[in-house]
Amino acid sequence: MDYKKFFSNSIDALKKSGEYRIFRDIGRISGSFPNAKYNDLIRKKNIIVWCSNDYLGMGQHPFVIEAIERTMKEIGGGSGGTRNISGTNHYHIALENLISEIHEKEASLIFTSGYVANDSALSILGSKLKDCAIFSDEKNHASMINGIRNSKAEKFIFKHNDSKHLEELLKKVDVNRPKIIVFESVYSMDGDFTPIEKFVNLAKKYNALTYLDEVHAVGLYGSYGGGVAQEQKIMHEIDIINGTLAKAFGLIGGYISSNRNIIDFVRSYSPGFIFTTSIPPAIAAGAIASINYVKNNQQLRSKLKEKCLLIKEKLLAANIPFLKTKSHIIPLIIGDSKLCKKAADELLEKHNVYLQPINYPTVPRGEERLRITPSPLHTDQMIDDLINALIFTWKKLKLNKAA
Amino acid sequence: MDYKKFFSNSIDALKKSGEYRIFRDIGRISGSFPNAKYNDLIRKKNIIVWCSNDYLGMGQHPFVIEAIERTMKEIGGGSGGTRNISGTNHYHIALENLISEIHEKEASLIFTSGYVANDSALSILGSKLKDCAIFSDEKNHASMINGIRNSKAEKFIFKHNDSKHLEELLKKVDVNRPKIIVFESVYSMDGDFTPIEKFVNLAKKYNALTYLDEVHAVGLYGSYGGGVAQEQKIMHEIDIINGTLAKAFGLIGGYISSNRNIIDFVRSYSPGFIFTTSIPPAIAAGAIASINYVKNNQQLRSKLKEKCLLIKEKLLAANIPFLKTKSHIIPLIIGDSKLCKKAADELLEKHNVYLQPINYPTVPRGEERLRITPSPLHTDQMIDDLINALIFTWKKLKLNKAA
Repeated sequence: MDYKKFFSNSIDALKKSGEYRIFRDIGRISGSFPNAKYNDLIRKKNIIVWCSNDYLGMGQHPFVIEAIERTMKEIGGGSGGTRNISGTNHYHIALENLISEIHEKEASLIFTSGYVANDSALSILGSKLKDCAIFSDEKNHASMINGIRNSKAEKFIFKHNDSKHLEELLKKVDVNRPKIIVFESVYSMDGDFTPIEKFVNLAKKYNALTYLDEVHAVGLYGSYGGGVAQEQKIMHEIDIINGTLAKAFGLIGGYISSNRNIIDFVRSYSPGFIFTTSIPPAIAAGAIASINYVKNNQQLRSKLKEKCLLIKEKLLAANIPFLKTKSHIIPLIIGDSKLCKKAADELLEKHNVYLQPINYPTVPRGEERLRITPSPLHTDQMIDDLINALIFTWKKLKLNKAA
Repeated sequence: MDYKKFFSNSIDALKKSGEYRIFRDIGRISGSFPNAKYNDLIRKKNIIVWCSNDYLGMGQHPFVIEAIERTMKEIGGGSGGTRNISGTNHYHIALENLISEIHEKEASLIFTSGYVANDSALSILGSKLKDCAIFSDEKNHASMINGIRNSKAEKFIFKHNDSKHLEELLKKVDVNRPKIIVFESVYSMDGDFTPIEKFVNLAKKYNALTYLDEVHAVGLYGSYGGGVAQEQKIMHEIDIINGTLAKAFGLIGGYISSNRNIIDFVRSYSPGFIFTTSIPPAIAAGAIASINYVKNNQQLRSKLKEKCLLIKEKLLAANIPFLKTKSHIIPLIIGDSKLCKKAADELLEKHNVYLQPINYPTVPRGEERLRITPSPLHTDQMIDDLINALIFTWKKLKLNKAA
């Protein structure tokens, strides 16, 4: 076994495929989102970020930064330990209570990330519920796929958002076995919404638990940012909601929200929760500030909707092809990894527009794309500049036009 | 299937066993470590924390807090995305370079936690190295156990720190198969050091990679805080070092450090790295400040050693039994979950000494313990108070005395 050769061959293969990832050094500027400095090692230049998951720019909001700074002064940096061993602070407790409030659940549990929340919760539920069967949407996020696989529960994959196929699979499983239906409310790479009620009805009919990932929806949908399930008025029917503090709320960390016993169960048994340092109390305080601000600010959500509609209109008018979904995620499918990277390079170099190429494994091969995620802070001028840059790039690289 | 009953029965069983965990609300006070406020919902009272993993108190060091605050003002709160999609900042890059420097490696990769670093790295290495055999110390941390299990590689568990047993197992495996030997340098619950050189020699003899977890050692051992492998002058022989920013460096996040191709491989293929928001740039900046401070401050390390020696002497004199290991971790074995909790309650309530009871699953049943982790900031008066509190509690609860 020649380890050196193995690793260098693997990297070479990636480079040849056009899927080798180069991380761009993006200098965010506090208070100026979506403006940023792109550092290409030769110079720093001003760019507009169009692909951040800081969907509302809350990661730079003065109200949030002030809360973090204040708590940093009060408490210090790290939490000091795992939640059990000296690492629980009143800001963690207050944050969990606030999360429960926006999701109208009894209890919540913070993890170091949304990824860890999915991986840990699904893995422990699937392994401890004896003979559990898990029904998983084929487009579910890697964190859920990992959690389900790690649980070693029997897995049934249903066609994307296809309740008929889900029902066929549910029928195959003994009615007495524990079951979990696992799905997202907005799929991050396609931007499509889920018919949640249909899944909830099936869960009732076949006595399954529902596990809903709202990471791309919390803060953005619903009467106070509870997500798509809140907007569709079905949130109270969901058993377990997964969310994040790292996207619309702008910071880091993830969570699940559920009834008291399920939360206590995951809290007590999940290695991914137990054996890890808790998030810094100051970050928890920042998340509290962010959630409180976003929850009561319906205008942020309506402004985001406006911006998205405007961009979609202009893309249509410019004949730039995009996935016509109703969410805030606007994917422009290019379908080739090298071309996708070339388009992104062109946009950044010539037009100061930052759209990261999204290649395999984030999307399947042949579905490579650029993915626009607007925020309420993108101005109409920025939108015009974006559209012009896309038109120019589409022409230059002879990319597909809308049919 | 009655889900309600299942979850409530599970919680009830935990409560009956004495293993149900109650998280204590510990109000850290910036700049005052190890002083803290314990909030028991009736009142807040002053306590001394004796069980934090903020081993050097760096999580509250003004130098670190100042770096975080400065960067928070410059960059904002969150990173804005995954490392690939808008979430790489020059502070991430600078932190990775600095980590490589302290471990004398070519490259490093930051994860959201040390847990995620272990889980992700081992899981991808074990699954992508075809037909890989992983040799794992029986006392390895849950994060490594999970990573190895998730890799689905064949696993061989060797007796704790037993190089003879490891060699027996290595002999059983075809010499041409890829192999990884996975172990820690300081075991967090027992505090014992590992004979690293023996494992390195076996790795050479049987052509295996070495994967060393130094999370409880970085910052604390070695000429500039590179860990036990640095102290034992064998760091350059280790293929992959895992470390954390959440213990001696006082913040949050974890990492691996290795040669350029292995790091690039994990960076390119690991879902647990790819699909998650990167740590806040301000936290990365704080970690840089912390590592720089700790790296050049040999006095911190020698002071910690002094404090540990003093406590061990006084425990001996007081006939309080403890595991006689050479590290900074001092476990007092109680061996019963209820008694362990009772002792901790007594220490906290009557003596303002905070030592969290360590029960199953963190340690095996029958090995329940209190675990003292001193810092250079614990004063001699605090040490005297601790010893007196232990003597009093040991007498009151009739706990085992040293033989």
